[in-house]
Amino acid sequence: MNNENNLKIIEKCTIAARGGMTLLSQEEVNKMMEVGKGGVHELFRKCCLAVLNCDAKEDDAMAVLERYPDFDVTLIPRERGIHLRFVNAPAQAFVDGKMISGIRDSIFSVLRDIVFQSTEKGVGNYDLDESFDITNFVFEILRRGEVHQFGTEPNLVVCWGGHSINRVEYQYTKDIGYQLGLRGAHICTGCGTGAMKGPMKGATVGHSKQRIKDGRYIGLTEPGIIAAEAPNPIVNHLVIMPDIEKRLEAFVRLGHGIIVFPGGVGTAEEILYLIGILSNQKNQGVPFPFIMTGPKESADYFHKIDEFIRFALGDEVAELYEIIIDDPEDVAIKMMAGMDQVKLYRTKNKVSYYFNWGLHIDSSFQFPFIPSHENMAALDLYLDRPVEELSASLRRAFSGIVAGNVKEYGVQQIKEKGVYQINGDKELMEKLDDLLQSFIAQKRMKLPGSTYTPVFEVVK
Amino acid sequence: MNNENNLKIIEKCTIAARGGMTLLSQEEVNKMMEVGKGGVHELFRKCCLAVLNCDAKEDDAMAVLERYPDFDVTLIPRERGIHLRFVNAPAQAFVDGKMISGIRDSIFSVLRDIVFQSTEKGVGNYDLDESFDITNFVFEILRRGEVHQFGTEPNLVVCWGGHSINRVEYQYTKDIGYQLGLRGAHICTGCGTGAMKGPMKGATVGHSKQRIKDGRYIGLTEPGIIAAEAPNPIVNHLVIMPDIEKRLEAFVRLGHGIIVFPGGVGTAEEILYLIGILSNQKNQGVPFPFIMTGPKESADYFHKIDEFIRFALGDEVAELYEIIIDDPEDVAIKMMAGMDQVKLYRTKNKVSYYFNWGLHIDSSFQFPFIPSHENMAALDLYLDRPVEELSASLRRAFSGIVAGNVKEYGVQQIKEKGVYQINGDKELMEKLDDLLQSFIAQKRMKLPGSTYTPVFEVVK
Amino acid sequence: MNNENNLKIIEKCTIAARGGMTLLSQEEVNKMMEVGKGGVHELFRKCCLAVLNCDAKEDDAMAVLERYPDFDVTLIPRERGIHLRFVNAPAQAFVDGKMISGIRDSIFSVLRDIVFQSTEKGVGNYDLDESFDITNFVFEILRRGEVHQFGTEPNLVVCWGGHSINRVEYQYTKDIGYQLGLRGAHICTGCGTGAMKGPMKGATVGHSKQRIKDGRYIGLTEPGIIAAEAPNPIVNHLVIMPDIEKRLEAFVRLGHGIIVFPGGVGTAEEILYLIGILSNQKNQGVPFPFIMTGPKESADYFHKIDEFIRFALGDEVAELYEIIIDDPEDVAIKMMAGMDQVKLYRTKNKVSYYFNWGLHIDSSFQFPFIPSHENMAALDLYLDRPVEELSASLRRAFSGIVAGNVKEYGVQQIKEKGVYQINGDKELMEKLDDLLQSFIAQKRMKLPGSTYTPVFEVVK
Amino acid sequence: MNNENNLKIIEKCTIAARGGMTLLSQEEVNKMMEVGKGGVHELFRKCCLAVLNCDAKEDDAMAVLERYPDFDVTLIPRERGIHLRFVNAPAQAFVDGKMISGIRDSIFSVLRDIVFQSTEKGVGNYDLDESFDITNFVFEILRRGEVHQFGTEPNLVVCWGGHSINRVEYQYTKDIGYQLGLRGAHICTGCGTGAMKGPMKGATVGHSKQRIKDGRYIGLTEPGIIAAEAPNPIVNHLVIMPDIEKRLEAFVRLGHGIIVFPGGVGTAEEILYLIGILSNQKNQGVPFPFIMTGPKESADYFHKIDEFIRFALGDEVAELYEIIIDDPEDVAIKMMAGMDQVKLYRTKNKVSYYFNWGLHIDSSFQFPFIPSHENMAALDLYLDRPVEELSASLRRAFSGIVAGNVKEYGVQQIKEKGVYQINGDKELMEKLDDLLQSFIAQKRMKLPGSTYTPVFEVVK
Repeated sequence: MNNENNLKIIEKCTIAARGGMTLLSQEEVNKMMEVGKGGVHELFRKCCLAVLNCDAKEDDAMAVLERYPDFDVTLIPRERGIHLRFVNAPAQAFVDGKMISGIRDSIFSVLRDIVFQSTEKGVGNYDLDESFDITNFVFEILRRGEVHQFGTEPNLVVCWGGHSINRVEYQYTKDIGYQLGLRGAHICTGCGTGAMKGPMKGATVGHSKQRIKDGRYIGLTEPGIIAAEAPNPIVNHLVIMPDIEKRLEAFVRLGHGIIVFPGGVGTAEEILYLIGILSNQKNQGVPFPFIMTGPKESADYFHKIDEFIRFALGDEVAELYEIIIDDPEDVAIKMMAGMDQVKLYRTKNKVSYYFNWGLHIDSSFQFPFIPSHENMAALDLYLDRPVEELSASLRRAFSGIVAGNVKEYGVQQIKEKGVYQINGDKELMEKLDDLLQSFIAQKRMKLPGSTYTPVFEVVK
Repeated sequence: MNNENNLKIIEKCTIAARGGMTLLSQEEVNKMMEVGKGGVHELFRKCCLAVLNCDAKEDDAMAVLERYPDFDVTLIPRERGIHLRFVNAPAQAFVDGKMISGIRDSIFSVLRDIVFQSTEKGVGNYDLDESFDITNFVFEILRRGEVHQFGTEPNLVVCWGGHSINRVEYQYTKDIGYQLGLRGAHICTGCGTGAMKGPMKGATVGHSKQRIKDGRYIGLTEPGIIAAEAPNPIVNHLVIMPDIEKRLEAFVRLGHGIIVFPGGVGTAEEILYLIGILSNQKNQGVPFPFIMTGPKESADYFHKIDEFIRFALGDEVAELYEIIIDDPEDVAIKMMAGMDQVKLYRTKNKVSYYFNWGLHIDSSFQFPFIPSHENMAALDLYLDRPVEELSASLRRAFSGIVAGNVKEYGVQQIKEKGVYQINGDKELMEKLDDLLQSFIAQKRMKLPGSTYTPVFEVVK
Repeated sequence: MNNENNLKIIEKCTIAARGGMTLLSQEEVNKMMEVGKGGVHELFRKCCLAVLNCDAKEDDAMAVLERYPDFDVTLIPRERGIHLRFVNAPAQAFVDGKMISGIRDSIFSVLRDIVFQSTEKGVGNYDLDESFDITNFVFEILRRGEVHQFGTEPNLVVCWGGHSINRVEYQYTKDIGYQLGLRGAHICTGCGTGAMKGPMKGATVGHSKQRIKDGRYIGLTEPGIIAAEAPNPIVNHLVIMPDIEKRLEAFVRLGHGIIVFPGGVGTAEEILYLIGILSNQKNQGVPFPFIMTGPKESADYFHKIDEFIRFALGDEVAELYEIIIDDPEDVAIKMMAGMDQVKLYRTKNKVSYYFNWGLHIDSSFQFPFIPSHENMAALDLYLDRPVEELSASLRRAFSGIVAGNVKEYGVQQIKEKGVYQINGDKELMEKLDDLLQSFIAQKRMKLPGSTYTPVFEVVK
Repeated sequence: MNNENNLKIIEKCTIAARGGMTLLSQEEVNKMMEVGKGGVHELFRKCCLAVLNCDAKEDDAMAVLERYPDFDVTLIPRERGIHLRFVNAPAQAFVDGKMISGIRDSIFSVLRDIVFQSTEKGVGNYDLDESFDITNFVFEILRRGEVHQFGTEPNLVVCWGGHSINRVEYQYTKDIGYQLGLRGAHICTGCGTGAMKGPMKGATVGHSKQRIKDGRYIGLTEPGIIAAEAPNPIVNHLVIMPDIEKRLEAFVRLGHGIIVFPGGVGTAEEILYLIGILSNQKNQGVPFPFIMTGPKESADYFHKIDEFIRFALGDEVAELYEIIIDDPEDVAIKMMAGMDQVKLYRTKNKVSYYFNWGLHIDSSFQFPFIPSHENMAALDLYLDRPVEELSASLRRAFSGIVAGNVKEYGVQQIKEKGVYQINGDKELMEKLDDLLQSFIAQKRMKLPGSTYTPVFEVVK
């Protein structure tokens, strides 16, 4: 059947829980019923729709939601666990009327995470104003997401980069994934398309050639981004983190190395986050393989980033990463060598392989940043601030720009109050403007095709 | 090496965690370190010693503890989880200096349960004055104990009975276990010797003949009894419940049917507990296979019990159970037929197979009974009380007698204040006295060989 | 290192056997050493090179062999099994100097099949002049290839079609594979590129979305074709059949349905083979889903084939197959429905799911056809012959043409004696010529780019 | 239902094949049907009855067969494999009318071995007059029996000894099995009761405590002995060897060490077989742990054996074994240490762990010995013969005595022609007589209770 937007839908479908969701207490069943009401229900509905819509192309969160206005999901308590009833769901998630298994699993991952993050016995046990508790909370969410594999050595590569990269870049991310997969590495990304999907896709081929049957393709997302960057269907471990800061912490504590592909402002935010942490004195000597790479056509992206970082934070921080252009095999070999270092270090220092407890993350990188106009205006982007502080503020600046681009809250803010006003050191502001202009020139701010409208203004 | 009691000991041994204990948060590691201190440490030490001592014969809790005065266990925090270091441990738990795998697993079960039951994020989440919360707490402990098997139909038989039964009776419990094992049933008991071990031992043979590799031998114990009734080595799922009432609730909600073998006062307590629950109006129509059985030499035990129950609670409640003498095959066939009823009923009424949420348990059966002299004296054992109330009081009376016999607290109380004084209806008190005298005559009050000293006195 | 053709090679590498090859008798080790000598060694070397070369693009058997003139493989007897030592092997089969696992498995599949097919205790047990023995031999080779899965219902789809199809067609074969994979079907092909790879590639995505971890991608090849159509790397069950006739018999007895994609003369041979068998009176009523399909751009290919078949063999035989243009979902749905018929039929008639013993295959389709000039000239392609005989002869005619195109023996024959002369009914010969001309026009006779030279001449 | 001997029987039962028996070729099905006729059928019927009767106590082969005169088994060809239909089978093999899984598996092991050993494509491939072929045949039977475990180190202990030992001895064999099981060793025996069952039973407990789920309990039997020594129900890998010599070869090539418990003449035969092989010059330096052990009450048995061996073959051969009285832990520790030697030796000499190809077995130990009166009379038991020859002849002498005791052929011979006449050196003959008298005195010649009648006479 088609809905009013003329999209194929499945009118009705009920699915039964699997795995951990089949063994529920009466109390849990009761708690879950609350997911059926109010704000939590709206959050759950939105995330479900994103998951069901996972093969679609668009990245406009609100557009997706508007396209299926009649979609809904209801929880049906059963003593044996919970059932979910869907109405008017996107047909692409079904085969011959039956929901695709991987999508069903993801739906229950969403339910698991939202329930945990909205109930007293879950999040209620953590004091989220405390750095230590935040980290333990992040760990607990990941552990519930069953992303770990017992007994494995460091082999998880986090890949960052844009979700709307071009064809050549996408192929390049697949090539990297393939080389990593051949070497037994597993992949963790932000779980959307583009640079988040390519490495996973490549890795499946590498894993298959090496007869690795339990390839892990971990997707970490958060409610604010899931609709715009729906989990790609390769993801077999989906985790919904509560917000962008916890998602970033999950990436750097879970992964054993990070590869950055070309992207837009979001990718810049991620790079500054990582630099801010690794440049912290307390993390000196902690090995962390960090490679930026792309095809030769994309070399300019990294040169601009590199230039900006060196200007803003100094040449020293540039030693934290390596830029490799157009050589997937070299990237993979260096990443694997880096992991050997990680293994040695952690064994020696008794830091677990499965979560990097030893990494210091300052609370300025942990507390959620709300991209209100006030908060954006209050970022002091001055060159005389310590590297750690400036990188934290720059990270937030980029975060706000991403929000203004694709997140509900940010888009709404801009609609109401106009573009953000950013203050700071004049020369730095010029460099920032320069960098963002280069992103626009490279068409990295939006899906190719639509014209980009800036969401901020540098106060000159 | 031998200790001062001339028992073989292993001076030093360190073991690493397995399974769920290998993936710990920093916070959990910290919390566990608290187990290394104060009262919780003493509890943990005592339970560990009981587990390590599992092949021993004696059932005198304090004797065991006194025999290994230098035994200790220390937690060593490791980022990868927790290690345990033992000193002066009983040698029988080791082979060529290495701890036996099954025992190591049990030690970590003890740790898991004690940590959960003594920390704020564990028990702290439950209001144990609330019936609903108690049930959910019981469930949560069992779920953490991983006693469930996904997708199985009702097939778990709880076996109750004495830990110091005679050779003929022991062989009979093995025969029953064998017949159950041949039919694919799994066994849950209180995890000690005698009637708690026999059915498991028999079932292993039945399972082996039927090529059932994942036989479940679930042992449910509690700190007050673990030293006296140490987990037998067949138990492959050990769970430490916090107290006797929660242990009893776990039995009746987890098992799909119950077989009672000859035993002593503890067994009588269990029988009265079950009758008290099944006779509740709210549980009318709930199928619950309940068979008392023994070899022909033990027929008298059940006749006495049956007589007492009929006198105290009426002939009607006697319809809740069936007494079968000397026919293991018949017992197994009837138990399996009873489980078919359970399956039909739960499917129809949407009650889960894995935990009998639908069974009503009155809070008088849930709240812990402290066998102080005051509490014992306050039991109103009068025939005019409703069946439900009287059975609850009788259950407590027997519970107090068990405590006086073998539990630290009770034994201590008796030492200090003399035997318990029990009040009640004259005729009923005579019947009770009669029943207990028959236990003494049948040598069911203690290990054969030592003289039995009564721990109570009926106020005449 | 590079060899003289300037191709990357790995100079030396030794691999140990896995699975069935690790538990060998002394006698088997001795027998295998014979594979190291003479003609069998040359056959083994050639097949190994094809497997190692599996990612390469060319389909010219001799070109491949000539490119690695120094390549060799030696068997090293070990009491624990056999080791293989390679010298100057194509580097693409290795990652960081270590052979890719899937390729290593395939190498041992080759060894397994060649040893079985060249020793007295293997092929020596079969009388290959007897139809019954041929079928049992085919079965035994497949069973040794472990292509079966216990307890599964009919779900294996054989896909036929060209190895050098165009991009649109290739995408279409992937789409079909994807739709089949989503529905739980597994894929069996001739194991090369193009239409032999696409359906497997698509199915891996479908399987992955449905969380099917044990997808079977069965490749059936034969020594005469393996170099030209090297096993693609998705194949996880590789079986080397002794010759083309046994390979065809394996396809139709193992698969539960067949999909034909556009191809060239080889595909035409396969179509005629299948029609020849299904049109046999003895196979009346045996359900066999048989679908020809392609994107709309390729509709003409099937129309020409259909036209030719109707002319040569009658409209009735056209009822054996269905032609579906440009609708992957429809193809998959119909194929699955067809399999339900197969299941019903076999259950009712007690024919095994794992091998279609009940299908009658006339010995004219079983005995190997040697494409000598004499044999080619002797094919009587006259319309008045029974459908069964004429289809057998036509199958042979196409077989000869394939040999002349890409197989060592045929190419050699043509070089020596000029093109084949084919006799037959004038009108039929014109239609045949017509069909082949259409293949040439559609560039289906060779890899795009090189000019095609006909290898036969119709005697007019 | 009961049969005429008043034994419980199951009138009718049909079972379907499992595992390897489900994937049969048409030809194999046809071949198997031949098992339904003539002598092979009688052999199959006899072995099936022995397996079904496995819990019974008697060891009189003919008695068993006579007790179930109406028992029969028929093969029913099915395209999916073979079904077996039983009539009037012993009820003990069934639970609620369904055959016990382990027994069903054993029945199909019998079928597998008898088919292989009686068809042209099985035994027909071996020349059993050739020593090399005999060894390969033995290996092939074991490989088909799937007794091996990939990737394991030497850990298989063969246990020999009597099937009708007394209670103390039986408990001792269990103690040894327990100690071996705790150390991860697996057990291989002749598969009957007594010393063949005890070590397995003990090992199951040890394995269970160590959470070893895949314990291997291999039973090697042969048609001549299976009825008298029916496979005990713990055996999970049953293999029927064709005759006693191949069974003995299987023991010494498969096992990594041998423990001998008290037994009768059969055990003496086994001891002499092993000594004959290990004392061969060609086997010098090959480590082979060989321990004789028993409780202190049985010390005399080994002293007599030891005395006889030293007298007959010299003190030197006594260095091949160690006698340990009443110390199960010591036996297990020494056996495990011996296996370490085996591992070292085989690794160094590239002899496989899974089968001792390197051990030289003289053909005089391989060719079947038929205990006819002529053959028995022809044994030259003279002290001046080389150790190797004399031990071979002594082995045969004992073999004949066993046959006269419990095997159909031997018992028949004795019935017809009177007791065997044995020739030899006078003093040796006296020692032999002495040894056998001591067996009689120790009641080792028959089940306790029945009077023993000697089956031989030393020609004085």
